[in-house]
Amino acid sequence: MSTRQYNYLIVGAGFAGSVAAERLASKGNKILLVEKRNHIAGNAFDEYDEHGILVHKYGPHIFHTNSKKVFEYLSQFTEWRKYEHRVLANLDGELYPIPINRTTINKLYNKNFTTEDEVKEYYESVREKRSPILNSEDIIVNQVGVDLYEKFFKYYTKKQWELDPSELSSSVCGRIPIRTNTDDRYFTDQYQFMPKDGYTKMFEKILAHPNIKILLNTDYKEIINKIEFDKIIYTGPIDSFFDYEFGKLPYRSLHFEWENHKTEFYQKVTSVNFVNSEKYTRITEHKYFSNQKSNTTTITKEYPQMEGEPFYPIPNDENSVLVTKYKSNVSKLNNVKFIGRLAEYKYYNMDQVIGRILSLY
Amino acid sequence: MSTRQYNYLIVGAGFAGSVAAERLASKGNKILLVEKRNHIAGNAFDEYDEHGILVHKYGPHIFHTNSKKVFEYLSQFTEWRKYEHRVLANLDGELYPIPINRTTINKLYNKNFTTEDEVKEYYESVREKRSPILNSEDIIVNQVGVDLYEKFFKYYTKKQWELDPSELSSSVCGRIPIRTNTDDRYFTDQYQFMPKDGYTKMFEKILAHPNIKILLNTDYKEIINKIEFDKIIYTGPIDSFFDYEFGKLPYRSLHFEWENHKTEFYQKVTSVNFVNSEKYTRITEHKYFSNQKSNTTTITKEYPQMEGEPFYPIPNDENSVLVTKYKSNVSKLNNVKFIGRLAEYKYYNMDQVIGRILSLY
Repeated sequence: MSTRQYNYLIVGAGFAGSVAAERLASKGNKILLVEKRNHIAGNAFDEYDEHGILVHKYGPHIFHTNSKKVFEYLSQFTEWRKYEHRVLANLDGELYPIPINRTTINKLYNKNFTTEDEVKEYYESVREKRSPILNSEDIIVNQVGVDLYEKFFKYYTKKQWELDPSELSSSVCGRIPIRTNTDDRYFTDQYQFMPKDGYTKMFEKILAHPNIKILLNTDYKEIINKIEFDKIIYTGPIDSFFDYEFGKLPYRSLHFEWENHKTEFYQKVTSVNFVNSEKYTRITEHKYFSNQKSNTTTITKEYPQMEGEPFYPIPNDENSVLVTKYKSNVSKLNNVKFIGRLAEYKYYNMDQVIGRILSLY
Repeated sequence: MSTRQYNYLIVGAGFAGSVAAERLASKGNKILLVEKRNHIAGNAFDEYDEHGILVHKYGPHIFHTNSKKVFEYLSQFTEWRKYEHRVLANLDGELYPIPINRTTINKLYNKNFTTEDEVKEYYESVREKRSPILNSEDIIVNQVGVDLYEKFFKYYTKKQWELDPSELSSSVCGRIPIRTNTDDRYFTDQYQFMPKDGYTKMFEKILAHPNIKILLNTDYKEIINKIEFDKIIYTGPIDSFFDYEFGKLPYRSLHFEWENHKTEFYQKVTSVNFVNSEKYTRITEHKYFSNQKSNTTTITKEYPQMEGEPFYPIPNDENSVLVTKYKSNVSKLNNVKFIGRLAEYKYYNMDQVIGRILSLY
């Protein structure tokens, strides 16, 4: 092992950086974990707001996975509470289960389907075959036709991305299943839980290793030439690492408006998506995450926007050309590993990024 | 201004270190603030517990001051809620106002005093003149005689310090006033408030300056030879700085036992002091600090002990000899400033340490 001060400089204290720090520290490596913000946990950061409600500061984070390995890894650092995410779509003021399921179809088209086959037949009768599947419009219309596409996907996606689904990779809308049964859970993974005391507490435990030093409020560029280390793990935006050499990569950002209401519950489920009205995409009611009791409730309205902190890579052809250029830069570097949603310009769920780190370290 | 990486290395992110960091950063200095724990705010740290109650993790911290300057300084970083601290003494199962006031005397001795003069006369009739005043027994007995001393001070102080008041500097018990009126507030300062969203939130704002880099989980000794800086401000234990050269200074520590009760309130006031029973000194009910609503309530029982993290310097002759030795070491150092309760081995209230930093920087 090197005699340098740190074996690893890790940039970013979100899931990618924190799990890498823990894995490497537990093997005897000395880690300096540098974070631009004044807190750990990345966008999974939660805290109690001024009304005493535990809120997801950067939008709802729902932990779900089919990976026993990932679940057991995190279980070292938190207890869990059972949590199944449910979402309703607000369409013309009426509420429908999302993802689309049998209940959605029955209510919307005044049907009485009782079997999966009936619904499958219905989708078959309205779908419009597209081949090849090139984009997010194709992938939905190919399954359920134009009417359901327009009602539940087209405008919502436009609000979310400022792009028509036809301009977005099929992976964006393709992530959302189309159901024939009445399952109204947003996810169907085997493990669906919330960290019992919240994500931030779980991160505190992940990082509670004497070999991990945490430097907050600091851009790694301010210190990189002043400290000694062997290797870098970089989890920040890939374009920023290379000083935007080939131009800025666009990231979708979010603006949150917070409201506290003097009522026990504001809405029936955690998230209501507004699929054909409002400028915000969705309203999230945070109490559902923790099941806490309170006379008031805190909600957020999410307004997607281009400016602001990077949240989502925008997967389309133009951007993937740009990313490829940056990635060829990465391949020339020794001792720097790029991991995570921002560093790989790739949408990862939480469990995916954790799984990736666990297999690497 | 120096071209070194940091103008100041500040050790400890409690009030002394954090306020110094803010003052110096605002004048253009680059600061590295190093903290051994995984959080800022020192012993004033508060957070929501697993029951959603905001708790003072290292015991009750009551902000009170007569200094307009200190109050206005902190007001840049927090809003406030009015809070007046009230304490009751549990003596043989009965509750009495503390500090001792007219109500205490009337209830305890079955009197009906209605004026300050009557109570003053009473104290005069029971006091036992001591001169010189050498210790904490002297200062109380000299004011109110042996019975009140034994009832409210002797055993409580022994529990707190493992020393008889006669072995402790008069400053310890002398801090607590003896009243002739019916004022049952613990403090009478002009400004008595709680930071509206808690101490930790206030510290986050104090430290939210781009010139302040915060390094958590780190003993300054691990990094001091690896970074460049002009000056040190040290707020940790003075004996540890000098590697216990003259021996270890004793600090009084606390062990906290936490309980959550399924009731709206557990006791009538924030703190109940057990003056002649129990092994714990007091029970503190945290909800009173924030006035939050909840069906449950969290309390702590405080057990003073010698082992554990340093809380209070122990002011007696033996220790002050030792401190003087260490302080003569300090005077030989250039570019290191020792400030705060641990670095000066001196009891400071929060406002006192802030006032001291403000006058220095």
